[in-house]
Amino acid sequence: MKRLTFLLVALATLGGVVAFRAPASGQTDAEAAPSYGVKIPPGYRDWKLISVAHEEGNLNSFAAVLGNDLAIKAYREGKLPFPDGTIIASLHYGHVSSEENNKVFGRSQSFVPGSPTNIQFMIKDSNKYEKTGGWAFAHFKDGKPGDEALMNTCFPCHNQAKARDLVFTRYAP
Amino acid sequence: MKRLTFLLVALATLGGVVAFRAPASGQTDAEAAPSYGVKIPPGYRDWKLISVAHEEGNLNSFAAVLGNDLAIKAYREGKLPFPDGTIIASLHYGHVSSEENNKVFGRSQSFVPGSPTNIQFMIKDSNKYEKTGGWAFAHFKDGKPGDEALMNTCFPCHNQAKARDLVFTRYAP
Repeated sequence: MKRLTFLLVALATLGGVVAFRAPASGQTDAEAAPSYGVKIPPGYRDWKLISVAHEEGNLNSFAAVLGNDLAIKAYREGKLPFPDGTIIASLHYGHVSSEENNKVFGRSQSFVPGSPTNIQFMIKDSNKYEKTGGWAFAHFKDGKPGDEALMNTCFPCHNQAKARDLVFTRYAP
Repeated sequence: MKRLTFLLVALATLGGVVAFRAPASGQTDAEAAPSYGVKIPPGYRDWKLISVAHEEGNLNSFAAVLGNDLAIKAYREGKLPFPDGTIIASLHYGHVSSEENNKVFGRSQSFVPGSPTNIQFMIKDSNKYEKTGGWAFAHFKDGKPGDEALMNTCFPCHNQAKARDLVFTRYAP
């Protein structure tokens, strides 16, 4: 059950567009599980919008994906890889039906963010995080960082998006 | 059919949280249909995030709701009514299944913004727009403003949210 929870949380990653592939051994890999030591970047809630996302099913998540100035510039210029210093933030909420909106619409169709569920970050430093494709991954729930088992899931999944420098989320114009 | 289109587009309003109530007469009301004369505010794509939204059904819309600094400040301070100069922008996209994400997930669950469908704005000026609750409403599709019939639908619907100064979208923390 604990493992399932990891899977589900792992699925609720950046922009809701990150998946998870269980290591064949089922063991954590110390090599692939660095302690990124990332703290919540100050001011991230003021960053510009990259995109939005929604995951159905057990996740039932709503995401707003924001980027610092380096991230936004790289996205807009279509430049890959992202430069060192890039930070991408994914703010996750529940995906909940809005009773007050549905009342106005006269039918059940409106979904809005529920309570925040977690905040996730990708931080680019091609030297410091060389072993994980140049990225650190971070996950915070109620201000507390994700544990090692959860953090082990980030890189193997993101590494599937090598062609896009490990970033799944595309820019919404 | 044309009328239905208006209804649907009208429903795809600010943050996907605006509904529509057809005038009993079925006629447009010149008094309630001012020519707001609003142009697309420069730099709106750089504004801060207010929230995200999704409408199911025919709309099938994904929205990112952004605000200028006055809007964000008022939201964060919980102050109503919004001050003159407030602008709220709702960027609408199709709500589309992401094949590339689903491939990673191994199942169909991921939704991302499709093509942009329209951009909508609410602009507060309590004197200039006194007849419509202090707000101008604007709608742009491919850069072209919404026609009179469409614009007639904005105020009657938003006026249902009088207790929140005609704004449906709540701030996502």
